[in-house]
Order: sequence, then C-alpha cells, then structure tokens
Amino acid sequence: MARTSAGTAVVAQSGGPTPVINASLLGVIEEASNHSQISALYGARFGINGIIQEDFIDLFAQSRQTLEALKYTPSSALGTSRHEVQRTDLQRVLDVFRAHDVRHFFYNGGNGSMGTADEIARMARDCSYELNVIGIPKTIDNDLMLTDHTPGYPSTAHFFACAVRDIGSDNLALPGQVEIVEVLGRNAGWIVGATALARENENDAPHLIYFPEQPLSLDRFYRDVDRVFRKLNRCVVAICEGQLDENGEPYGADVRRGSRGSLAMNLGHRLAMLVSENLKIRARSEKPGLLGRSSAAFILENDWQEAGVCGRAAVRAAVEGNGGNMVSLVRDSTTEYRVATGLVPLREVALLEKVVPPSLRSDHDVTPAFLAYVSPLIGAVRHYPQFTSAAVPKRISSVMESSQ
Amino acid sequence: MARTSAGTAVVAQSGGPTPVINASLLGVIEEASNHSQISALYGARFGINGIIQEDFIDLFAQSRQTLEALKYTPSSALGTSRHEVQRTDLQRVLDVFRAHDVRHFFYNGGNGSMGTADEIARMARDCSYELNVIGIPKTIDNDLMLTDHTPGYPSTAHFFACAVRDIGSDNLALPGQVEIVEVLGRNAGWIVGATALARENENDAPHLIYFPEQPLSLDRFYRDVDRVFRKLNRCVVAICEGQLDENGEPYGADVRRGSRGSLAMNLGHRLAMLVSENLKIRARSEKPGLLGRSSAAFILENDWQEAGVCGRAAVRAAVEGNGGNMVSLVRDSTTEYRVATGLVPLREVALLEKVVPPSLRSDHDVTPAFLAYVSPLIGAVRHYPQFTSAAVPKRISSVMESSQ
Repeated sequence: MARTSAGTAVVAQSGGPTPVINASLLGVIEEASNHSQISALYGARFGINGIIQEDFIDLFAQSRQTLEALKYTPSSALGTSRHEVQRTDLQRVLDVFRAHDVRHFFYNGGNGSMGTADEIARMARDCSYELNVIGIPKTIDNDLMLTDHTPGYPSTAHFFACAVRDIGSDNLALPGQVEIVEVLGRNAGWIVGATALARENENDAPHLIYFPEQPLSLDRFYRDVDRVFRKLNRCVVAICEGQLDENGEPYGADVRRGSRGSLAMNLGHRLAMLVSENLKIRARSEKPGLLGRSSAAFILENDWQEAGVCGRAAVRAAVEGNGGNMVSLVRDSTTEYRVATGLVPLREVALLEKVVPPSLRSDHDVTPAFLAYVSPLIGAVRHYPQFTSAAVPKRISSVMESSQ
Repeated sequence: MARTSAGTAVVAQSGGPTPVINASLLGVIEEASNHSQISALYGARFGINGIIQEDFIDLFAQSRQTLEALKYTPSSALGTSRHEVQRTDLQRVLDVFRAHDVRHFFYNGGNGSMGTADEIARMARDCSYELNVIGIPKTIDNDLMLTDHTPGYPSTAHFFACAVRDIGSDNLALPGQVEIVEVLGRNAGWIVGATALARENENDAPHLIYFPEQPLSLDRFYRDVDRVFRKLNRCVVAICEGQLDENGEPYGADVRRGSRGSLAMNLGHRLAMLVSENLKIRARSEKPGLLGRSSAAFILENDWQEAGVCGRAAVRAAVEGNGGNMVSLVRDSTTEYRVATGLVPLREVALLEKVVPPSLRSDHDVTPAFLAYVSPLIGAVRHYPQFTSAAVPKRISSVMESSQ
C-alpha cells in the first residue's frame, strides 16, 4: 500500500457543533502521534476560517491534562464555522497548506463540508500538490449518504427521546393539555423518529411523531391531536423545526432566511397557539433547541467511541495515501450491533442529503423498521414506574363527582 | 409530647411536578410504616381531586420493586392538579376524611397548597375533628417563606445552570450571534440567578442575567446586549419567562391568561426577534421549558435526599400531634453546608411569595451574596476545558484577512 512522505497534518471542525465532535478530534490527535508521516498536527481555529487566516494551534503541544479534560465535552473545542467557501478561499487554503508543508487534511463535518473537502482535493490534484484529504463524518441530523449513521446523531437522538419521555411524564401527572415538543431537524426526521424510544406502553408519549419528509396539513394535524386528546386527556407531539404544511409553509411561524434556505424559529409555539385557538385545548410548547446538540448529560458512550474510531481511521487512511475519501460507519447486520469503518469517495457524499425513506415512517409515527434501525444506536431509555393498581374502595356517595 | 390515636393517613401531591417530589412521597411511605398511629396510608390521585372523588390508592400495598423504581423518577407519581379549591370542596374533603377515618394529611406543594392545607386544618379544628395537617414544601421556584430553600429548586437550578453552560459553549464555538435562554420563573428569579454557576472565567456565559423582580426596559436590554456583543462577538442572556418591561408588559410576547395571572408563552423568542430587528445581530432563543422541572438527568443527590427527609419529618410531626405546620429546611450557617428540618405554622407561609431581595441581585447579574447562598445547594458545575495557547507562527502575508 502506498505510504505517504512526511508532512504536516491539519484538522478542522465544520458546521454545527455536536455532543461528540471532540471525540473525533481526540482520535485524530492520538492516532496522528503514532505515525512518522505526520511531523506536526495543527488545529484550525473556527473551521475553514482558521486555515484561510493561518490561525492554527499546535495540537501536539497540548498537555495530556487538557486532552483528558476534553472527554465527554460537547461543542467544538477548536471552534467551528458556517462560512460559505468561495473559489478564492480554496486557492488561499492551498497556498497556506503549501507554506506549512501540509500533506494531510482532516475535515470533520456534514455533507456541505464533504463538498468543500472534495473541491480542495481536486484542486490539489490539478496542480500536482500531494495532499491527502479525508472527511470525518459529523452531523446530528444523520443525513449523510453511504454511512450507517453519523457520529453525533445517537447522542442527540438520545437527548430528544429522554426529553419526550420526561415531558410525557409531566403531561401524564398534570393532564388536560397538549404539549408540542419542537425537535431539531430541518429536512430529515431521523431525530424526531427516535423519540419513539420514549415509549414503554401503548399510551405513552410521544403520541404523534411527524416527519418533515411528509408535508402535514393543519386539518390533518388538528384531527390527529383532537383524536388523541379525546382518548387520553393529554397529548405529546414530537415535530421538527423544519416541518411544513402542504403548501410548503411553516403554519405562519416566524422565519429566518439564510443561505441554506429559510427555517422557522418558533414552529412549536405557533402550533401550540393554533391548537389553543382552534381546538380550544390548553396547549404549550417546549423548544430545547441547541441544548439537544450541546448537552453533555446525554452523550452516549457508544457514540463517543465511534466518533473517536472515525478520527483514528481518518489518520490511517491519510498516511496510507487514501485521500479523497470520507470515513464511513458500516453496520454488521449478521450479528448483534457492531460497526466497522469504511471509506467512501467524497464526491459521492458531497452535498447529498439522506432523508428518512417511506418504509421507515407512517403518517404520524415510525414503523417497526425504524425502531430496528435506531434501537441499537441508542440502547434502552429508562422508563418510569407507575403505581400498581391498589384502589381503595369508596365509602361515600360520589354526588360531587360531576362537578369536578 | 402529645401522641395521636391511630388512624388513616393521606398524602397528596399538588401543583407543578418537580424532579424530586417523589422523594418526599417515598419518605412519607417509609416513615409512615414505622408508626403504629398510621394504620393505613392512602395516596390521592391527581392532588386534591383525588380526595374529593375518593380516588385513593393503598400505598402500603405497593411492592418494594415499585418503590425502588421510583428512585430518581421526576414528575408526580400520584398525579397532581392545579384545581382551584372552593369552600364546598373543603367540606367534601372533611366528609371523605371522616368516612375513611383519616387523621393525618400530608400535602406536598407550594404556597397556594399551604393555604389550602391551613384552611382544611382550621375547618377540622372548628368542628372538633382530630386531624393533623402537615405541609411538605415543594416548588422549583424556591419562593416559599420561612424555609432556607424548597426541595426541587436545587435540581431545577442545576438543569438551567448546565443548560446555560452548554449553550454558552455552543455559542463560543460558533460565535456571531446572541442566544436568549428562557428560564422557568414567573415572579421570583431564584432559578435564573443560579445560571451564574455556569461561569468559570470572566467572559463565560451567561453574560446577562435578568431578575423578574426588576422591570427591564427594552432600551436597557438593547444597550446591555450590544455592549456584550461588541466586546465578545457573542452573548448569552438568561431571562425568566415572567420578565416584564417598565410598563408591566412582556415586550409584545403572546400571553396566556389564567387564574394566577397572565404569563408570556414565547418571551425568549420575542426578545430574539427584537434583537435581530433592532440591533441587526443574528439572534435565536431556546426554551427548555418544562424539561427544566422534569429532567431525570439533572436530579441532585442532595436535593433528592432533602426532599425525602422533609417527607419523613412530616410523618413524625403528624404522629406527635404537631398539625397545622409545614416542614422547613434550616441551614446551619456556622459550618459547611448542612440542613436540619424545622416546623413553621402553615398560616405564616400560606399564599406568600419569597422573591429575590435586592441584596442578592444587580441590574443584570447576581451579587456575591447570591452565589454564597446558592453554591452549596447545587455544588460545582463541571466546566469545559479550552486549548492552551500554542499558536503556530504565520508563514505568509495575511492580505486576505480583511475579507473574512
């Protein structure tokens, strides 16, 4: 297998932070120190901006104590960026790489970042500059192609499954209202689907799960909520921030327009208001929002480990001269849950989005196939006990019950 | 000391659930089984409604397994209620108590519930019915008089301190925006003040903490946010759902009107919109909402233990004939943190609200006295590491920096 010549390596974190992105960074640092082909390892501050501005820190110079403390630390320790990369930026990246003799570049991000990584790899090849670009998958949204799942998704899905369980428990104790839980996710419903793991019994929350892959009319939404509420005197709805109606509109919610398209900022609240006004049922909404991707308390050990494995695999791929690829996670479906890493061409994942296919979802719920996919990633969510029925016989007439 | 004659005991949970209210219930169950004066222990389903409707379960009939499983289970396992108690309800309560020979009543709630407990105690005394009514303090809001703090407050404050730390870490990694974190709390700022524990260094989140005890004008808010953002290129604001401006209005937020007054439903979002529009700074809001009182992951061992101690103390007070009191927590201020329980007359806590006094708060922050009060209740919040500075020297001119 081709071995590369020695040079500097650069690692950068890109896009929204995740609970485990720092595990991939630690994996890169640990593995890089094992390879003589990597003479120095620099971390770019704030994503691609750090490269453009030559804002690097020496990761081999960090103390063991600092690296140890990063364990189970969410967010992006190097800083990250949503800077939209221009052609002139890419030329500058190559200039900076040349100036620092950078021969290995690890870019930890989602599908947009894989597109950027692919462009950098191609520009380097076009000008015969030896550079191994390796993508490390990262996104809470789980929307990257050609990988079983993405590091960061399991922990975020775990957060929202527990959130729906806890809010469902509150709603059970203090019924008579509808709870709308707004879940992270713009176009792909991987996270919202995972809230099904909050259930132990038939009537447990979430009672309705909507997938952004399927437009939801207000009429349909009202009918669903009304049906559940009439049956249970409570209702917990799990819905994505990116859910749209049959006209592609977010029910009149306030919208922020950005380069990735528009996104509603208060969709859950808007729907709660509509339920109150139109169904005359008390309704409220919760929006844990960014807490779902930043909460240390819900980091899953398995997710943390897999993110680290991806970082280490990226370094090995680079020193073996396998640039132009992204590390993927491959599930061994013949055994109990176990994953290995693979390599997939950057261009085959770049800018593509993996949404939840129809076989994994129904109109307002997941299918068993979704649960079979997601359960091994998250494991069992603790369920709360109910008192066993030990009703005390009534001793007086119940004349007043009708007034309650 | 007066010993009471044997009879049935009833326990009910009232008002909003908390992370540790079930610890008080377990304390009552455990202690009650030690006293021959308590021949049976009934749990009322859904608060006072369970008494009115004779909807009781036999708590001595519950399996050890069920009780064990309740450990660290948030929400109200018996169910709770916000039913506004009427005079006819109280008469019915006494009728039901008589029918079941109830001689001990444990009411676990906040200041409104202590008012109801006091009325029930007085009505029983007026008709010479022997009944020991004991209040068990409970409220995440920490707004009960004559107790150092209330069970449930520390765990909820812990949730929001960690939430602000995590969102602050996200905001540090991906700067250039303002984050408004909406915190539970209508009139009292005990929870929002505790978010100060998220800080380790001077520039850590939260950068602004507002107390609902102090009206906040929009002008002042804009000036504060602008000052922080210009200095740090980021800003995390911790603000209560009940914050009002100098005219007593919630900045144009949507409001729900209820018997306890009106409450804004989307205050954080409304302020984020105003920042975007008026300061032209990207802003968003997070509303963990009820998750702050229902999340099992942030239950503090100390809070859980103290809630249990309050339940046990209530049973002892009842069998010793000390009806008409609420259990209080008394801090021993001469040593490191340690609390004992006391008893305070129900009528002295009923319907009163303990807000944060001026000595504990400034215009947009806590004072050292607040930290001295709250720190022992919550303990140390884990802080996240930063990379030590090990900047790599630049090798090429920085002509492009100005365009970034």
